[in-house]
Amino acid sequence: MIDSAVVAQTNDLRAKNLKADYDALGEQLNRCGIPIDAIKAKVAAYGVAVPSWGVGTGGTRFARFPGEGEPRHIFDKLEDCGVIQQLTRATPDVSLHIPWDKADPSELKAKAQALGLGFDAMNSNTFQDQEGQPHSYKFGSLSHTDAATRQQAVEHNLECIEIGRAIGSKALTVWIGDGSNFPGQSNFTRQFERYLDAAKQIYAQLPGDWRLFTEHKMYEPAFYSTVVQDWGTNYMIAQELGEQAYCLVDLGHHAPNVNIEMIVARLVQFGKLGGFHFNDSKYGDDDLDTGSIDPYRLFLVFNELVDAEKRQAPGFDPAHMLDQSHNVTDPIESLMVSAMEVQRAYAQALIVDRPALEGFQQENDALMATTTLKKAFRTDVEPILAMARVENGGAIDPVATYRSSGYRKKVAGIRPAVSGAGGGIV
Amino acid sequence: MIDSAVVAQTNDLRAKNLKADYDALGEQLNRCGIPIDAIKAKVAAYGVAVPSWGVGTGGTRFARFPGEGEPRHIFDKLEDCGVIQQLTRATPDVSLHIPWDKADPSELKAKAQALGLGFDAMNSNTFQDQEGQPHSYKFGSLSHTDAATRQQAVEHNLECIEIGRAIGSKALTVWIGDGSNFPGQSNFTRQFERYLDAAKQIYAQLPGDWRLFTEHKMYEPAFYSTVVQDWGTNYMIAQELGEQAYCLVDLGHHAPNVNIEMIVARLVQFGKLGGFHFNDSKYGDDDLDTGSIDPYRLFLVFNELVDAEKRQAPGFDPAHMLDQSHNVTDPIESLMVSAMEVQRAYAQALIVDRPALEGFQQENDALMATTTLKKAFRTDVEPILAMARVENGGAIDPVATYRSSGYRKKVAGIRPAVSGAGGGIV
Amino acid sequence: MIDSAVVAQTNDLRAKNLKADYDALGEQLNRCGIPIDAIKAKVAAYGVAVPSWGVGTGGTRFARFPGEGEPRHIFDKLEDCGVIQQLTRATPDVSLHIPWDKADPSELKAKAQALGLGFDAMNSNTFQDQEGQPHSYKFGSLSHTDAATRQQAVEHNLECIEIGRAIGSKALTVWIGDGSNFPGQSNFTRQFERYLDAAKQIYAQLPGDWRLFTEHKMYEPAFYSTVVQDWGTNYMIAQELGEQAYCLVDLGHHAPNVNIEMIVARLVQFGKLGGFHFNDSKYGDDDLDTGSIDPYRLFLVFNELVDAEKRQAPGFDPAHMLDQSHNVTDPIESLMVSAMEVQRAYAQALIVDRPALEGFQQENDALMATTTLKKAFRTDVEPILAMARVENGGAIDPVATYRSSGYRKKVAGIRPAVSGAGGGIV
Amino acid sequence: MIDSAVVAQTNDLRAKNLKADYDALGEQLNRCGIPIDAIKAKVAAYGVAVPSWGVGTGGTRFARFPGEGEPRHIFDKLEDCGVIQQLTRATPDVSLHIPWDKADPSELKAKAQALGLGFDAMNSNTFQDQEGQPHSYKFGSLSHTDAATRQQAVEHNLECIEIGRAIGSKALTVWIGDGSNFPGQSNFTRQFERYLDAAKQIYAQLPGDWRLFTEHKMYEPAFYSTVVQDWGTNYMIAQELGEQAYCLVDLGHHAPNVNIEMIVARLVQFGKLGGFHFNDSKYGDDDLDTGSIDPYRLFLVFNELVDAEKRQAPGFDPAHMLDQSHNVTDPIESLMVSAMEVQRAYAQALIVDRPALEGFQQENDALMATTTLKKAFRTDVEPILAMARVENGGAIDPVATYRSSGYRKKVAGIRPAVSGAGGGIV
Repeated sequence: MIDSAVVAQTNDLRAKNLKADYDALGEQLNRCGIPIDAIKAKVAAYGVAVPSWGVGTGGTRFARFPGEGEPRHIFDKLEDCGVIQQLTRATPDVSLHIPWDKADPSELKAKAQALGLGFDAMNSNTFQDQEGQPHSYKFGSLSHTDAATRQQAVEHNLECIEIGRAIGSKALTVWIGDGSNFPGQSNFTRQFERYLDAAKQIYAQLPGDWRLFTEHKMYEPAFYSTVVQDWGTNYMIAQELGEQAYCLVDLGHHAPNVNIEMIVARLVQFGKLGGFHFNDSKYGDDDLDTGSIDPYRLFLVFNELVDAEKRQAPGFDPAHMLDQSHNVTDPIESLMVSAMEVQRAYAQALIVDRPALEGFQQENDALMATTTLKKAFRTDVEPILAMARVENGGAIDPVATYRSSGYRKKVAGIRPAVSGAGGGIV
Repeated sequence: MIDSAVVAQTNDLRAKNLKADYDALGEQLNRCGIPIDAIKAKVAAYGVAVPSWGVGTGGTRFARFPGEGEPRHIFDKLEDCGVIQQLTRATPDVSLHIPWDKADPSELKAKAQALGLGFDAMNSNTFQDQEGQPHSYKFGSLSHTDAATRQQAVEHNLECIEIGRAIGSKALTVWIGDGSNFPGQSNFTRQFERYLDAAKQIYAQLPGDWRLFTEHKMYEPAFYSTVVQDWGTNYMIAQELGEQAYCLVDLGHHAPNVNIEMIVARLVQFGKLGGFHFNDSKYGDDDLDTGSIDPYRLFLVFNELVDAEKRQAPGFDPAHMLDQSHNVTDPIESLMVSAMEVQRAYAQALIVDRPALEGFQQENDALMATTTLKKAFRTDVEPILAMARVENGGAIDPVATYRSSGYRKKVAGIRPAVSGAGGGIV
Repeated sequence: MIDSAVVAQTNDLRAKNLKADYDALGEQLNRCGIPIDAIKAKVAAYGVAVPSWGVGTGGTRFARFPGEGEPRHIFDKLEDCGVIQQLTRATPDVSLHIPWDKADPSELKAKAQALGLGFDAMNSNTFQDQEGQPHSYKFGSLSHTDAATRQQAVEHNLECIEIGRAIGSKALTVWIGDGSNFPGQSNFTRQFERYLDAAKQIYAQLPGDWRLFTEHKMYEPAFYSTVVQDWGTNYMIAQELGEQAYCLVDLGHHAPNVNIEMIVARLVQFGKLGGFHFNDSKYGDDDLDTGSIDPYRLFLVFNELVDAEKRQAPGFDPAHMLDQSHNVTDPIESLMVSAMEVQRAYAQALIVDRPALEGFQQENDALMATTTLKKAFRTDVEPILAMARVENGGAIDPVATYRSSGYRKKVAGIRPAVSGAGGGIV
Repeated sequence: MIDSAVVAQTNDLRAKNLKADYDALGEQLNRCGIPIDAIKAKVAAYGVAVPSWGVGTGGTRFARFPGEGEPRHIFDKLEDCGVIQQLTRATPDVSLHIPWDKADPSELKAKAQALGLGFDAMNSNTFQDQEGQPHSYKFGSLSHTDAATRQQAVEHNLECIEIGRAIGSKALTVWIGDGSNFPGQSNFTRQFERYLDAAKQIYAQLPGDWRLFTEHKMYEPAFYSTVVQDWGTNYMIAQELGEQAYCLVDLGHHAPNVNIEMIVARLVQFGKLGGFHFNDSKYGDDDLDTGSIDPYRLFLVFNELVDAEKRQAPGFDPAHMLDQSHNVTDPIESLMVSAMEVQRAYAQALIVDRPALEGFQQENDALMATTTLKKAFRTDVEPILAMARVENGGAIDPVATYRSSGYRKKVAGIRPAVSGAGGGIV
């Protein structure tokens, strides 16, 4: 963790200006009848989970270029997550990935507790083969043509639930890479029947207070078809499995041009929105930092979420997680900034004048309706976020504080340098 | 109709070569255990409906360039459709569009009967304002914020059912242009609630032996969101309405890169595939001639259909229709060629060695599985199609026969020339 | 024009808050070493042209739903443009479209002058057939296989230059709909050779102080291929023609996911950026209001423009124009808001800390580089824009002032209602 | 290599049917005035290069699932390439990748000669870091902000030329992963200036009888921008460098929906088409087997090539290479099938009735023009390909012969099993 003196010191430099900006913004919002402190309170109470694997440098099929001080194991990862939470106060929970993060549950709990962290959804992995695994997932896992392979994948998911129970998780996220690379390679219908059958076996063992999140993705690693290719198929799955089954929306898993905020609205309306994997993308599943490419789209997603929250949509309780690949930045920095971007979109959505919006919608005043959203979006809510952070014990400028702290250099002294994978994968 | 002597004459020129090609292909197929006559019989029994509006020259928002002899009304259109059926024997039914094709039902029936035609699904129109219509659809129809406008749209659909009953149709296709052009213009959830409510009113009046087809489309004429934007929403609608409600798939209404054949498989699996609007596209809803851009994709769709047919998927009985915009060709020619392209894809799908395919799929032999599809696809089944046509009384080469007949020139003498719309719509 | 008392009155209501917000922002910017008045001065000097056709309600191939008080002719259109400029002070010039706006040049000039307007680039039209035109553009214009048709198209462009000279324009914009709807319909090479040959004939007659802008577009109205399909072909054209030939970039004319700001950078680097048609889009050439879908993308384009401006890129002098289709809003309102969105992006780009950015780029500090852009983007520069407007004689809130003025109702009393085109174009 | 007795034996089983099919097709083509033997001769003379890395199992960022008998080094790879050529007689050359294939040049030559293989273009690698490399390519190579890193990348390319000279190659292909993941990370203009400067240094050392191929790619591994993002930038590069510089077209490196055959035509027209990397894709750079997703698109590309060949376009001499990632098939099988798919497209393009096509194009008979292409495409030219193979000493059915030979099992006994990369790269 970072020395609290460093946090205090870097905050001190910024406190006066923050106060001035917060007051000026408060004045502006007050004119529109919005109490800034109420917004701040909601932002302060908001959290987005961090995935354990996100704190390592990511890569592509072409190469991976690790940075200094790469975490060696889940305990290093938890420490990095602890820093993110310490400075942003926006990421109270960590999401584990099995088998990457397998460790003694009590040690995991103890470490997390020491760092002030909790555990979010468990993530299973049946898209890679592990050393010594009897059956390969080369041709699929939960939907494989071979029953023994499906059984192995089911059991792995059940093991994830077991681990999750032990550490206090309440959800299992299932993403599979199953699909096909050639027309004809798989019979779509048989493959989906097998998937549903296997998923039902997992669902049958889900604890009564857990949720099962299934995640759709258009393509990659399969390049002709994917079993859970879009939200339509994902919705069918959630319906087939039962009321504890929900759809997870990753912002980068859609076809080009798709209106994601509308998918969010549909899933909310039919009670099946499970949660999000936040990131951003320009081309495919680019896993770029949240809000870095199209911040307005992120805002429009949160506009739907706040709309659902305000009208108390039945069963509305989505899980929020970041899911990014940090190839050219310090993962800790990217995750801090991304957590703040998610908060920013939330804050902006909170200050939308909803009664006015509803009126414009009712009258088909498209121009004023969209201007109402834009007005909220272009409001610089940074003072609200920063004030919420500092009042919660975090940093006004988390990146500056982090850099001042020398954390990366410090861990680089402990964690050995690793060389990038230079595979022949083209 | 075209003089049967012209048909006979142009067929005579081609009969010998056709016989030789048919025999050579029969020999090849026989080697693979496929009886060519059985395939021919299935092709001969197959029909795809023609939309009445398809026989007029289409256009874009920029311009329309009419051709000679444009049909003036539904009776001219029926005559053109009669020619298409006469020569191809592949298009026994016509699909009407109300109010464009409104006329006395008994006259419609008599005319169709005289031409050897039947009537396919009825199509309603709530995406345009008609002269004297009390409420405008500028801001929507079935999902409009105004109850009276929704009611008007419901009643129009009920009128379409009435007309359809009188002429022997058994289905109503509902496509609406409702959506929005700006973020915030519409509340997605409220809009969809209104849509479902209106659709239920139509469904409640559906005759017991009818089907209701709803059609999804990603965008256009609305450019930010569309109420029925994809198959996921369309599936929700079909579920909400009831067992006579089905999803219609237009090949051009999807996001870029989407795997359409997989959507078809999903809808078949869950008993909700209503039918198709066939066309082809490279960019958006281009409404190009079926199979003209990506014939393999069309084949892959038919591969799913034949798969479903062979395993007698419950409730599988999709309606087939062409839906194209003919901007630079003679619409009659395009529709004839397109009907034959649909038959071609069907014939190719019929000769897929399905037991072999299933074996390769089971063994994850991706290469041989896809090669099995490709082998069927690259078989030139034209002799089967031509033989089926000629034995049914049609033309071996419908386009050549049509051109020989001078039909277009003849109708151009009767139907006055029209000038293109030169609007300021950019 | 709108009564200046209405402007004064609506401004009075907002002046005090504007002053407060401007001062607060000035303070914030000052902390970063940015003098707010200098930014305001640049914004005040900035102008974006309005297209004459933009003040009429647009439509799609499915329908057009006109509003009240649609302009009847170019003089009505100029009046509407005058209102836009009166209230926003951001749109000093109008771009004419021939033959739609054909009128006596001296009357045009007089009218414009009276309204305080000038004339921007001339736009030719060879994508529609005009009454009595000898040769049809159904199969192309400048690239048509028929020499006489090409000649006709060339002459039309020369006529546009003539008219432009008479009214003080200094540029010709050439956008054609030429292309093909079927593979094989056109020989790509021959077609482009013919295009280049015709374009050279136009270029040869270009006055020495004029520029020729060619515009690329991926598709529509042609749906398989377009002659000037992308910036690569457009660049070839500009190179072939000569130094007065430049490429025009319409934000909606690209393939999905394309990085438009990078195209802008390339054209600047090679001295061939002619200008912009601003709008926004989610799917294709949707022609939505500028900045309404992806405001960050618009900012990134302006980031390139300001970068080029600051380093005084040789020959850098792009023309700026709005080009939108207003289907569901009052066109005057949409154009006012869009002009301000363009200004907003410009203002945000102006406050980017460029020395810092350059440093981060040099050190590959991706996170701080992108944060530097984001910081500028999330600054609410509205007070700068409003202050620039009001000091120039415009309105603090143009839409509110416009609505207060009753202008639309007034012209609706003069201009007869028109009914929408309800064509059979599906 | 495979025992020639196995080849002979498997051919014998198929010879009679092949003869019958070849004769029947010859008869059909003869009717259209096409001498089948002339087509066969052209097909027999055609070759497409195989990339050395293609014979290893590929993977994604998520996982790699190796097969049996993975090649250990370039000599194993050459043996696999030898088998492909032995059975298909369509792949006479191998393209090397440095440093992956670095070895003693004389040994390389000897081995290739023994296998009846030659060497195609050299491929450099500056998208990965190699053990012990002084400067990392994490933030770019030829366009890096650091001069020493650029220099290192230039020198690596010069080394590739040296190796190529020693083994008889005549071209260098430069593909880089340089780009950025965040808006603002790189200054587009400075980055491209650095790229051009470095490329000029390589070009300056290019032997007089060599060609330099630069390859564009829209995205991946960089996900916001790529330096050589499209053919427009690629064309600028080729122009800047000089007459030995050409553009390479990889079929999977374009934006969604892009008309690739048109890009091919443009590059031919302006004398800058260098060659191809063949593969197929549905979503992004999927690197699927050539022709497996959209065989008609492949045909349309070859239609341009044959058109250019027939009219003897100046400087037209493109290099042909396969570039695929084989994740779920035996790479040898995929490469054999893909080589044949390329030949198939070529053969189909050769039998297009070009005088008729030209006539239809001239008359704007779009329907007959496209039908002319379709007629050639739907001709099953397999007998031509098979006859060309068998007459050249190859196999009638290369996959069947390969499977009969037991080659894979044999090499699996020699080459040790490898386990898949199970990285934490998500």
